[in-house]
Amino acid sequence: MNIIKLDAINSTNDYLKTLLQRQFVENFTIVSAENQTNGRGQMGSEWSVEQGKSLTFSVLVKDLLLEISHIFHLNVAVAVSVVEALSFLQIKDLAIKWPNDIMAEGKKIGGILIENSIKSDGEIFSIVGIGLNVNQKNFENLQKASSISILKNQEFDKQEILATILQNLGRNISLVMNKNTEPIWEKYHSVLYKKNVPMPFENTHGQKFMGIIQNVNQEGKLLIKLEDESVKKFNIKQIKMLY
Amino acid sequence: MNIIKLDAINSTNDYLKTLLQRQFVENFTIVSAENQTNGRGQMGSEWSVEQGKSLTFSVLVKDLLLEISHIFHLNVAVAVSVVEALSFLQIKDLAIKWPNDIMAEGKKIGGILIENSIKSDGEIFSIVGIGLNVNQKNFENLQKASSISILKNQEFDKQEILATILQNLGRNISLVMNKNTEPIWEKYHSVLYKKNVPMPFENTHGQKFMGIIQNVNQEGKLLIKLEDESVKKFNIKQIKMLY
Repeated sequence: MNIIKLDAINSTNDYLKTLLQRQFVENFTIVSAENQTNGRGQMGSEWSVEQGKSLTFSVLVKDLLLEISHIFHLNVAVAVSVVEALSFLQIKDLAIKWPNDIMAEGKKIGGILIENSIKSDGEIFSIVGIGLNVNQKNFENLQKASSISILKNQEFDKQEILATILQNLGRNISLVMNKNTEPIWEKYHSVLYKKNVPMPFENTHGQKFMGIIQNVNQEGKLLIKLEDESVKKFNIKQIKMLY
Repeated sequence: MNIIKLDAINSTNDYLKTLLQRQFVENFTIVSAENQTNGRGQMGSEWSVEQGKSLTFSVLVKDLLLEISHIFHLNVAVAVSVVEALSFLQIKDLAIKWPNDIMAEGKKIGGILIENSIKSDGEIFSIVGIGLNVNQKNFENLQKASSISILKNQEFDKQEILATILQNLGRNISLVMNKNTEPIWEKYHSVLYKKNVPMPFENTHGQKFMGIIQNVNQEGKLLIKLEDESVKKFNIKQIKMLY
């Protein structure tokens, strides 16, 4: 079984969504879960964690994005914030696998799931869910998953990591608010997983092909140079990275 | 009191959202409410209806929009579907007040609230909430609100209206799916409220100014010709129509 199931954290996201339906929730409210009983990964797959050993939380971000077309700036700000926090812990070979997976030494150690809600009355809000494998040691059958603890061979304080991520997030979200997005994009591209490396991909028709990741554009699309030297844009539904 | 409080229907939308968090919900699922006890208008205002006299329902639309930039096509398809159903009932002077209010004879008779959810894992779905004043007769203090029943001086069968709207919606959503959006945009522009008429507006700083609505662009922004003949784009948060 080759699917990485640690992708993203839905249940703290769901909690925040339900709260938002019922009452006023302040901007930058954080929901953190000591134990996730209902975590789901991408594609609805079950996600089992060793209780209490992973860091899972959601942050509400309101009215940051006033333009639908700017949605991916938030993804970049969040992914970069996580990577910066992990660099601080001296985790090596950190990378962001497009669009939002956190990698270290070629293994997946975290995932981000951002849910943007855009109403026709102009209200825009985003729920940012972040999941990081901190102190887990066992990843049965998940050969491509790892944790900070495995990589560094020590236990970590989840609350300290949370605080550092939130600090970075505050700073990077300010950059987006001030339309100074260049620095976070530069960082994002500098740690983009498998950039400039020939890689196999698979399209929605199940066809495999080779390509080289060039970069990610402002809309969040992956630009891949194909064998005929042309560069094609793909959104997340259109392509699978085979690695 | 001059605020129109019949804008949009949140509670069937909320019901659908909660359902989606809990279980698989089929595309084009419809939630219709005979009585809305928790309906909210725009800006969180309370919305009181005469029990059972309004048509309020929500429709789930999944994976229609594969590009974030195409979000407004759905708004257009929905607004046009409602207008077409009302033309069928021979309601006169129908118009769509940008972005999504349904007008007849200069009064508001319905509202649409679309909530688009876009996840970083590529999932896009929209919850389309539609509210129509069908058989209400009383709109205390709401001088700019009316109902189909008042306009036509007869009672209507809500279920028949619902069926007609859904039929139109099916057809118009097919157009969007087939990327043949020209016809619905043409219709939308042909019934755009106050198009080509000098009108007062107010910006976010409370400044009033005169302008003439030109059209709505593909991103859903309102293009207004100003007194200096320049044309400026506004999103829904940036402008208020004073009428």
